Amino acid sequence: MINSVKERRTVRRYLQKDISPEMLNDLLEASFRASTMGGMQLYSVVVSREAQMKEKLAPAHFNQPMVKGAPVVLTFCADFRRFSLWCQQRDAEPGYNNFMSFFNAAMDALLVAQTFCTLAEEAGLGICYLGTTTYNPQMIIDTLGLPQLVFPVTTITVGYPEELPEQTDRLPISALIHNEHYHDYTPSMIDDIYAYKESLEANKEFVAQNQKSSLAQVFTEVRYTKKDNEFMSENLLKILKKQGFMG
Amino acid sequence: MINSVKERRTVRRYLQKDISPEMLNDLLEASFRASTMGGMQLYSVVVSREAQMKEKLAPAHFNQPMVKGAPVVLTFCADFRRFSLWCQQRDAEPGYNNFMSFFNAAMDALLVAQTFCTLAEEAGLGICYLGTTTYNPQMIIDTLGLPQLVFPVTTITVGYPEELPEQTDRLPISALIHNEHYHDYTPSMIDDIYAYKESLEANKEFVAQNQKSSLAQVFTEVRYTKKDNEFMSENLLKILKKQGFMG
Repeated sequence: MINSVKERRTVRRYLQKDISPEMLNDLLEASFRASTMGGMQLYSVVVSREAQMKEKLAPAHFNQPMVKGAPVVLTFCADFRRFSLWCQQRDAEPGYNNFMSFFNAAMDALLVAQTFCTLAEEAGLGICYLGTTTYNPQMIIDTLGLPQLVFPVTTITVGYPEELPEQTDRLPISALIHNEHYHDYTPSMIDDIYAYKESLEANKEFVAQNQKSSLAQVFTEVRYTKKDNEFMSENLLKILKKQGFMG
Repeated sequence: MINSVKERRTVRRYLQKDISPEMLNDLLEASFRASTMGGMQLYSVVVSREAQMKEKLAPAHFNQPMVKGAPVVLTFCADFRRFSLWCQQRDAEPGYNNFMSFFNAAMDALLVAQTFCTLAEEAGLGICYLGTTTYNPQMIIDTLGLPQLVFPVTTITVGYPEELPEQTDRLPISALIHNEHYHDYTPSMIDDIYAYKESLEANKEFVAQNQKSSLAQVFTEVRYTKKDNEFMSENLLKILKKQGFMG
């Protein structure tokens, strides 16, 4: 199974073939064995199979075609509601309407999501993470009817692959591992670390198409801009508050 | 490998046996294939093997014995520093000193951490997550020398198991899965969902030992109190700001 991870690639196009409910449940059930804060299981998974629901979710994900094209869309939510309802029914006062609790629940949700992906890929399925989930959380909250203390953390599209895309590049592992303490990067280390990424033809074309002078500028000026990040930061904190997670 | 996940349990006691550098690197390298926001790889892993470093880290984790007892302690950090340094060296203005960017980087770090755990367990190792990482981030930042735009998100202790603990309980999967939209919980559903957990002898003893009237009260009044959560929420936001992630 380490080989299936080493060979993995994100898959964005899927065959018109359903994932059986048995297979999906089996993969989810195994994923629920992931480590969880204090055994609390602070997550919920919303399964979208109906075309109509995927249609409604698509705009929240900037209409990326995977949403409507995948047989199954999974929205992994931080969920302190179920646990808090239990507390209230047991004469215990829940104290989970705060940022720390959101973060703990978000971690739980992400560990389950990633376990699911690893298992799904080993079973021959392909997945794609949608980072857009936290960009437009309110649209997802409305569409899926998420109540207080439930927050969409990430979304995965999943299906049988119609394509075998090329693997994307990764930085040298020495760039990502620090022994004993953080070793800060010198300018020449940064040059070395990003040299391969910058040398790729696809990335050179990307720079040219966007009329930029470096690949980094494509990130800062086109894909992940300061302005967008600041807008989304404010929005994310606002909706966290609205969902009851900021006290 | 789905069986290794289904059979998994958290392992807190390890043999006095090192994990070879080759094995650790191989597992980490495979984990770095996990999905990552825009291919940016917004994480760093700090590897602690030296007894002295584990000794220094232990108080941040409330001196849980796994920290000093494990051959390897891994601190997974959200890291926008490396990427931002690259941008600066390439005449691109990074805009990642904000909450959205922190959250994106934290997600990246958690997907890598969980991929590592799944692979490590399949390879015969045992792991334990330390949720304490975000309770005392400043102590970890100081010990590991984490600079601006680097933040410790989670910690894993890892080693060859000295024990095979019992598997902990999980809620029924129907409690965690919502078809098409969120189906809110009725009081009788909550009773059903938590019935098995409440019926366990160990949990009954836990309630008696703590002189509480319900298991939920052990959580709200002893393990995860409102007061602690509120204190840690404020602290977490303060340290996120100090590390440069709140604008």
